[in-house]
Amino acid sequence: MARKIASGVLKRAKKIQLLLMDVDGVLTRGDVFLQSQPDGTALELKAFNAHDGAGLTLMRTLGLRTGVITGRESAALRRRASELGMEFVYEKSAEKIPAYEDIVRRAGLPEEAIAYVGDDLPDLPVLARVGLAVAVANAAPEVMRAAHYVARARGGEGAVREVVELILKAQGKWQEAVKKARA
Amino acid sequence: MARKIASGVLKRAKKIQLLLMDVDGVLTRGDVFLQSQPDGTALELKAFNAHDGAGLTLMRTLGLRTGVITGRESAALRRRASELGMEFVYEKSAEKIPAYEDIVRRAGLPEEAIAYVGDDLPDLPVLARVGLAVAVANAAPEVMRAAHYVARARGGEGAVREVVELILKAQGKWQEAVKKARA
Amino acid sequence: MARKIASGVLKRAKKIQLLLMDVDGVLTRGDVFLQSQPDGTALELKAFNAHDGAGLTLMRTLGLRTGVITGRESAALRRRASELGMEFVYEKSAEKIPAYEDIVRRAGLPEEAIAYVGDDLPDLPVLARVGLAVAVANAAPEVMRAAHYVARARGGEGAVREVVELILKAQGKWQEAVKKARA
Amino acid sequence: MARKIASGVLKRAKKIQLLLMDVDGVLTRGDVFLQSQPDGTALELKAFNAHDGAGLTLMRTLGLRTGVITGRESAALRRRASELGMEFVYEKSAEKIPAYEDIVRRAGLPEEAIAYVGDDLPDLPVLARVGLAVAVANAAPEVMRAAHYVARARGGEGAVREVVELILKAQGKWQEAVKKARA
Repeated sequence: MARKIASGVLKRAKKIQLLLMDVDGVLTRGDVFLQSQPDGTALELKAFNAHDGAGLTLMRTLGLRTGVITGRESAALRRRASELGMEFVYEKSAEKIPAYEDIVRRAGLPEEAIAYVGDDLPDLPVLARVGLAVAVANAAPEVMRAAHYVARARGGEGAVREVVELILKAQGKWQEAVKKARA
Repeated sequence: MARKIASGVLKRAKKIQLLLMDVDGVLTRGDVFLQSQPDGTALELKAFNAHDGAGLTLMRTLGLRTGVITGRESAALRRRASELGMEFVYEKSAEKIPAYEDIVRRAGLPEEAIAYVGDDLPDLPVLARVGLAVAVANAAPEVMRAAHYVARARGGEGAVREVVELILKAQGKWQEAVKKARA
Repeated sequence: MARKIASGVLKRAKKIQLLLMDVDGVLTRGDVFLQSQPDGTALELKAFNAHDGAGLTLMRTLGLRTGVITGRESAALRRRASELGMEFVYEKSAEKIPAYEDIVRRAGLPEEAIAYVGDDLPDLPVLARVGLAVAVANAAPEVMRAAHYVARARGGEGAVREVVELILKAQGKWQEAVKKARA
Repeated sequence: MARKIASGVLKRAKKIQLLLMDVDGVLTRGDVFLQSQPDGTALELKAFNAHDGAGLTLMRTLGLRTGVITGRESAALRRRASELGMEFVYEKSAEKIPAYEDIVRRAGLPEEAIAYVGDDLPDLPVLARVGLAVAVANAAPEVMRAAHYVARARGGEGAVREVVELILKAQGKWQEAVKKARA
């Protein structure tokens, strides 16, 4: 994180009050794990990242808000969102704009106070709207071009943690976060 | 994807109407996950790739057809194939030619309109028949030599997405795909 | 392991009788796997490392003691801790100092006889107390700065095995360990 | 596989009729996956490699024999061993020599006709006995030093496939294997 962040990105990050993100390929490495069941169906397993989780928990402790918009749905995601105190959990939202607009309305925030992290084509419409648009390091080229900031880390390998630190540092809250984590 | 694709490959890709593929090592990294069950049996878990999935879904949206031929069988694969709208799902087909010939007949397509992505020796007979034969980046050497195109990505890490983009770009349909994904 | 270890670190390692560690990101790669269940809940799967396990088993065979302090809780961890003969298993301990102080009291050891391996901010208070503070190779920068020793290996990829070998070698017990493993 | 293999290794490989191996870290990447169950126990999941599997199946098709010796036990391993037609499956064998000697007796083979692939200290006593001793690329240093051949591939990432090809090529059977796989 010693990398220089462009001043335009820091200016955007200062205003963020809500961090939204895609799930598969952003909070995970993009692995879609399906577990065969004895009855012939298959249930989803998801692999989240502990560092991302610690970051999102800190963010909430400091009063910022978080949420996900995903095309898939699983008990695994709902448990993880609950563990991390996420306020907005939109599943089965292959088209992301209706979910996004619902969140904007419910959150009562201007779009410049919202950040979104994405990795693939369905994320493009939301990335075009938010105050801080972030692509993970291994995003599709179209998504990288649409982002204000491309994370150094890949999805599921700390990209969300990196964005959390970027926002908290831009807002001068990182030292407080480290102290709270020590508590 | 800025890499130059040989013109012979593009010519082949233009004609493709059906994309077939092996499963383990192509749609997955080659991990064969077995989950021990309380009754002493073991059930299969499979790890698919979200970017591959988004690509295959787009392909179908644009009217192309897809399918798999695999020696194994699992509820996990059947769910994934269903999610992605695959038309042909041949399991327990360690010998791939009978399954392939059945698909050719049912699809009603000339073999030059069919692409196949493989990674190991059992894929060789099918690769020798199709219009566009693709090997993943970490395929067995014999498979690489049999392929018209060797993907830059490894199996389960975006090789199928790369082939989808290759075909749609060769057919001038990629911009439409990006727009549809944005919808 | 041919790397030169600073003499101060070896001196600290000589005194260790109890090796404590975090779980997620230390005994695992930091993947938090959640398995959707038929009843709509999700249960945790954990991926431990065989080389770490062999090292911890050897350590115990040679009379040293081991334990974990983690913010999460799972049957998976409890089984692993049991397999490895761990003496101290503290789950649901997001704040690590109360658990740590309880262990110190129960173990009846001076803090200079205790080592701790961590990877993220919640590990900082314990790292500040123990005789040998270790960070995994991919720890948060704050954790690396707080450590006496930064492992060459990443969490879940042999970092704990590396610490076990460091301690046993510093104590002149590694050759005995190799012989016992051969037994 | 274009790498030059030392003539001493090829000479040893020519005589092999039985390929034995460790499981965790050899047939897998060394991940010990434990799945929490609703009843508070945890069951093992194992991640095998499709290329290793295809190699071991070919080996058996060509009349060679295979088996495993492992300290752990799981339904997952037993299913995999059965799928691959393994003749010898010894679980719960933390001390490997008794299992090995039992196999030697049952197989009715001289030790120079047996190969073994290992990755960690408990494999050392068997490696010291067999005709062809192999270490995976990421084996413990002590195991590498004890091996006649160190695989280029890591455990669970094709090391066993590499050994299968080494043996079949040394015996002049690889072309036949490729043909059979095409069948």
